[in-house]
Amino acid sequence: MNERDRGSPMYLRLSEKPVNALGDLVPFSNKLYHGNLQKRIGITAGLCVLIQHLPEIKADRYEAMYSFYFGDYGHLSVQGAYLTHEDTYLAVTGGSGIFEGAYGQVKLQQIVFPFKLFYTFYLKGIPDLPEELLGQHVPPSADVEPSPAAMAMEPHAVIKNCTD
Amino acid sequence: MNERDRGSPMYLRLSEKPVNALGDLVPFSNKLYHGNLQKRIGITAGLCVLIQHLPEIKADRYEAMYSFYFGDYGHLSVQGAYLTHEDTYLAVTGGSGIFEGAYGQVKLQQIVFPFKLFYTFYLKGIPDLPEELLGQHVPPSADVEPSPAAMAMEPHAVIKNCTD
Amino acid sequence: MNERDRGSPMYLRLSEKPVNALGDLVPFSNKLYHGNLQKRIGITAGLCVLIQHLPEIKADRYEAMYSFYFGDYGHLSVQGAYLTHEDTYLAVTGGSGIFEGAYGQVKLQQIVFPFKLFYTFYLKGIPDLPEELLGQHVPPSADVEPSPAAMAMEPHAVIKNCTD
Repeated sequence: MNERDRGSPMYLRLSEKPVNALGDLVPFSNKLYHGNLQKRIGITAGLCVLIQHLPEIKADRYEAMYSFYFGDYGHLSVQGAYLTHEDTYLAVTGGSGIFEGAYGQVKLQQIVFPFKLFYTFYLKGIPDLPEELLGQHVPPSADVEPSPAAMAMEPHAVIKNCTD
Repeated sequence: MNERDRGSPMYLRLSEKPVNALGDLVPFSNKLYHGNLQKRIGITAGLCVLIQHLPEIKADRYEAMYSFYFGDYGHLSVQGAYLTHEDTYLAVTGGSGIFEGAYGQVKLQQIVFPFKLFYTFYLKGIPDLPEELLGQHVPPSADVEPSPAAMAMEPHAVIKNCTD
Repeated sequence: MNERDRGSPMYLRLSEKPVNALGDLVPFSNKLYHGNLQKRIGITAGLCVLIQHLPEIKADRYEAMYSFYFGDYGHLSVQGAYLTHEDTYLAVTGGSGIFEGAYGQVKLQQIVFPFKLFYTFYLKGIPDLPEELLGQHVPPSADVEPSPAAMAMEPHAVIKNCTD
């Protein structure tokens, strides 16, 4: 979720072209909530490299390299395509803490560009995850919002030492 | 192969130095052909970070972080050194689709800077690859060109939903 | 170790903000010494993406993506958080040479910002490392310096074809 309070994304138009073009870079960092939207679980942080602007379909291809931070649990690093017009699968390249040795994929679904993204993690190589990171998610839709308690990071609605 | 039709590479002289220097960044995206040059199989996409300019040998060291996209088959992400004067081995950091869980190395040989590169994939952790990604390659040389059918992406000379 | 002779780090204030902010990028490359400081073993090379400036504690969060180069032995690629105010664990995303197929974590301890960093490697998925990369380290402290022989890269104080 992007709540427009982190100065993100920062679109660097280094190509100096009037439209998005190779040369542009986009550092970003967004907030991560559990799929049930009842708990704040961390942030994302990294870089998107604009690869291709597709004017016919008003879309862009980015190469994304970033990490998901889950407080005391550790982090997961990923790399792959971010397309503004369709879902993609990112490669899990590694992790720390409980995610040490993780591999697999992360499905990236864009709900509201560029503010709401829905991620599904397909992880291998690690022990069972803690309960609070598992469980059902609400159906992805443009209308969903995190619970006020999760947004406020109230103690019952946030993981331990949540990255912020 | 770089056919000079993708605006790549985009050399960003952010160091503001008269010669290549740390601070310069080079987003890029090239076309991928099978080693037999009869089939177009996708693209590369990512970023090179200029690390060191070696004026005595007129060469550069880059740190390269990018992915290979193979249409419906998925992608492979890699990271490592790109040296303009000698071959290097990149680390495979992960993959998606049929490349999920891949690890190993990719040998990078530069044939014609910066237009023709020859890659050899040493992949582990994945099932056997499909026939059309395997097979003999032509000897790497400055003269090789993809077949006209592959360049035109004719149906018999391209993989399914080839990334372009 | 940063001996201020590699033009590193190169702070690119692309955010155009008066303080460090999302949008800033920091390509870097430092020298690597064995923890006993008797041998030069290579370099680091890569990119830090400024994610967050924390003015209350005068600290910064970076997303770091870089590699460690160990001459003929090969390289290790890592990704994760670099915090100027506390230790972090980076994910090992892959490697080449004797580090092919490596996974695990690297602990990053900052001794003197941004000149002296102490790394501890927790590696899995690879054979035993060669003797000269193993062994005891001196206690990390602000006062440590590499041996003059290692700094001068004298033959007995450097690994084979050490990356420089």
